[in-house]
Amino acid sequence: MQFLLEVVDILTNYIRKTFDRSTKVLDFHHPHQLLEGMEGFNLELSDQPESLEQILVDCRDTLKYGVRTGHPRFFNQLSTGLDIIGLAGEWLTSTANTNMFTYEIAPVFVLMEQLTLKKMREIIGWPNGEGDGLFSPGGAISNMYSVMIARYKYFPEVKTKGMSAAPRLVLFTSEHSHYSITKAGAALGFGKENGYVPLFVNATAGTTVYGAFDPINDIADICEKYNLWLHVDGAWGGGLLMSRRHRHKLSGVERANSVTWNPHKMMGVPLQCSAILVREKGILQGCNSMCAGYLFQPDKQYDVTYDTGDKAIQCGRHVDIFKFWLMWKAKGTVGFEQHIDRCLELSEYLYNKIKNRPGYEMVFQGEPQHTNVCFWYIPPSMRNMPDGEERRERLHKVAPKIKAMMMESGTTMVGYQPQGDKVNFFRMVISNHAATRSDIDFLIDEIERLGHDL
Amino acid sequence: MQFLLEVVDILTNYIRKTFDRSTKVLDFHHPHQLLEGMEGFNLELSDQPESLEQILVDCRDTLKYGVRTGHPRFFNQLSTGLDIIGLAGEWLTSTANTNMFTYEIAPVFVLMEQLTLKKMREIIGWPNGEGDGLFSPGGAISNMYSVMIARYKYFPEVKTKGMSAAPRLVLFTSEHSHYSITKAGAALGFGKENGYVPLFVNATAGTTVYGAFDPINDIADICEKYNLWLHVDGAWGGGLLMSRRHRHKLSGVERANSVTWNPHKMMGVPLQCSAILVREKGILQGCNSMCAGYLFQPDKQYDVTYDTGDKAIQCGRHVDIFKFWLMWKAKGTVGFEQHIDRCLELSEYLYNKIKNRPGYEMVFQGEPQHTNVCFWYIPPSMRNMPDGEERRERLHKVAPKIKAMMMESGTTMVGYQPQGDKVNFFRMVISNHAATRSDIDFLIDEIERLGHDL
Repeated sequence: MQFLLEVVDILTNYIRKTFDRSTKVLDFHHPHQLLEGMEGFNLELSDQPESLEQILVDCRDTLKYGVRTGHPRFFNQLSTGLDIIGLAGEWLTSTANTNMFTYEIAPVFVLMEQLTLKKMREIIGWPNGEGDGLFSPGGAISNMYSVMIARYKYFPEVKTKGMSAAPRLVLFTSEHSHYSITKAGAALGFGKENGYVPLFVNATAGTTVYGAFDPINDIADICEKYNLWLHVDGAWGGGLLMSRRHRHKLSGVERANSVTWNPHKMMGVPLQCSAILVREKGILQGCNSMCAGYLFQPDKQYDVTYDTGDKAIQCGRHVDIFKFWLMWKAKGTVGFEQHIDRCLELSEYLYNKIKNRPGYEMVFQGEPQHTNVCFWYIPPSMRNMPDGEERRERLHKVAPKIKAMMMESGTTMVGYQPQGDKVNFFRMVISNHAATRSDIDFLIDEIERLGHDL
Repeated sequence: MQFLLEVVDILTNYIRKTFDRSTKVLDFHHPHQLLEGMEGFNLELSDQPESLEQILVDCRDTLKYGVRTGHPRFFNQLSTGLDIIGLAGEWLTSTANTNMFTYEIAPVFVLMEQLTLKKMREIIGWPNGEGDGLFSPGGAISNMYSVMIARYKYFPEVKTKGMSAAPRLVLFTSEHSHYSITKAGAALGFGKENGYVPLFVNATAGTTVYGAFDPINDIADICEKYNLWLHVDGAWGGGLLMSRRHRHKLSGVERANSVTWNPHKMMGVPLQCSAILVREKGILQGCNSMCAGYLFQPDKQYDVTYDTGDKAIQCGRHVDIFKFWLMWKAKGTVGFEQHIDRCLELSEYLYNKIKNRPGYEMVFQGEPQHTNVCFWYIPPSMRNMPDGEERRERLHKVAPKIKAMMMESGTTMVGYQPQGDKVNFFRMVISNHAATRSDIDFLIDEIERLGHDL
């Protein structure tokens, strides 16, 4: 126990420093440097045990060479920030060290999951919050559930006879949608060719790069007309449902058959916390149950409809609910709303700051729909270059160079990527409640400091 | 931070009590009782925030009404125990709150995963530990990976054209294998009918109920002859590879194309920690990559072959490696070996204790292969009953009744289930390093105390 308290001491120091802006976001090293053993940090495993003292050193080194994703100037991913209540929830979860598959060994967590999913369905707008759902290990798996359930809905015999019991199937999703939709299609045996039968349409609420919202109502009209399953991938944008100001961007979501919604993104819940929500009750069970008698005994003394294991494609399932439930208790629905409104305001601030600033070009015009702000930084040496292939090629290298320097200096982190015919641009996102306008200013200063002489 | 330390105080008290045998394993309540609000424990979420004091009460109540899976007398699941080093590792992991998909944001964890998977492949016996692998959110997903990879190996065009690019496929697995193999087959569009083309054979190393080991070498001979993919599901039995005394039970595992191995089961690592290991290098990437340019930029300043995201069916992936790596550092390979040998000795102790004891019938004869010991307890009133339907029906109800009373009294927990034509029997398993012979004695006393008058 003394050991555990010493680790807690290391961790609380780490947390304090993470929120201190004079601390660097990261201390970058290349893989070969870390593998060679930085200052005695030996990653190799051995036959003989190490001393507890050495284990504490290993813990310190692990944090030292990692990335502070909770730092107010870490903008690199959709999941950022470090919520202390959520963290405490996760520490409790790992101490309880149990499994979601039965009420028997996770009574409280199973009920928390049920109540929270119901609340989320109410917020989506399904009557009385009815329906079904599960927390799954991330948005990609949640999206995979949606494709599986849709397939089961239209062709239940696939479950026993395989894909040959269905015609050749195809799914529809937009070019900007998350790649996990295509991945799920590939895994589940859908093809991508003309003449295949469509049964599933994905509408994205908050695309990964642009933060764009598909028009759910228009898509729902088409799905109703042609009897197609409508899934809304709100992994990133689902959180906006908590905000009275922003939830109109998901207007029509209540017409979806299934929704992916990741509280570990826009709602600041520690990783992992992703929900798949389904309008039709019982279909998850129908789709996935294999009636494993050794795990789900029907003759238990409690109401076994509370056992969730046979609904899942997993057997053991990590307890992802508690940290979220605890944060909800501590913040209330209104607290999540404030968090989301605040992050979107910060994005508007960034957008207004750079939209007409010399040296910036926006990737798309108009106010950001989500917290995504996508832009090119044009170094002074390029500002008078004529449009053309040469400029494109040079501009393509600007963001990677600035990013590499950012990581070397460790001051901040922001993502970049190309998209379609657009060369590399920065994608700024904000989901960290610790970030302020001064951090946005710092990012812009830093981009200009590092990019000025490119 | 004060709040976090108060939660730590709650958690360390909980841990101390968990290891104290005078503490109950659980304080059982029915779902409706918990939902009605036990002593003010309100599970419902609300719009307004709760005070931090109330949040601390919520934490205490969550633990109070939960199940102590780390208690030395909790024998209910394959994953039991509470390793303090592993727990510290998990607390650090949630504090780091990052994601395995790129080296960029998880440099240390990505390297730890790589080195640990290599070590596991060496232990399996693949030359130089070469091959590939990932930690996944549980054995069911690891098994699903194996089926996906096998399908890709034989019919790579399924990835783009769907299952219609392959003949009707079927997989082989034994009746006692884990249901996740069948579930993976159903998800991936395999059927279960005669005349379908086999491409995948699963051999189980440590079945869930009996702890039995399939003869891997014999199965490998057949797979080689017919050019089939051989997967070894060692979710439960894989840990025995760490023991020089017991690893012969997996003899032939080095001939497998893929192996599932869950350190969170027999090796006592906190949940979740499951590895899928693959002999052929590069095939995970081939099978799963979708080349998402916005996440996996090829023009980063470091060697991007260290990015793991495009190998996975997940996008975000929880850091499951650190607790395992830290435990390995602290115990050494020899420490895991001792843990496994000790658990198997305890099972032998139990087997020898009850095999000839009045009132016990073993479900199968012979020394246990794993820590599973399966048995019926026959109450005195039934000991002279002739074999037949009436006895079967009564016996079927004995284990559920004893289990229900166990849970009500909260003293210990052990699983039961029917299997094929066998009526409900107890399945005892041991993976908790805190368990001793006295705990085994206690379990048997408790079964007899509760079952005596049935």
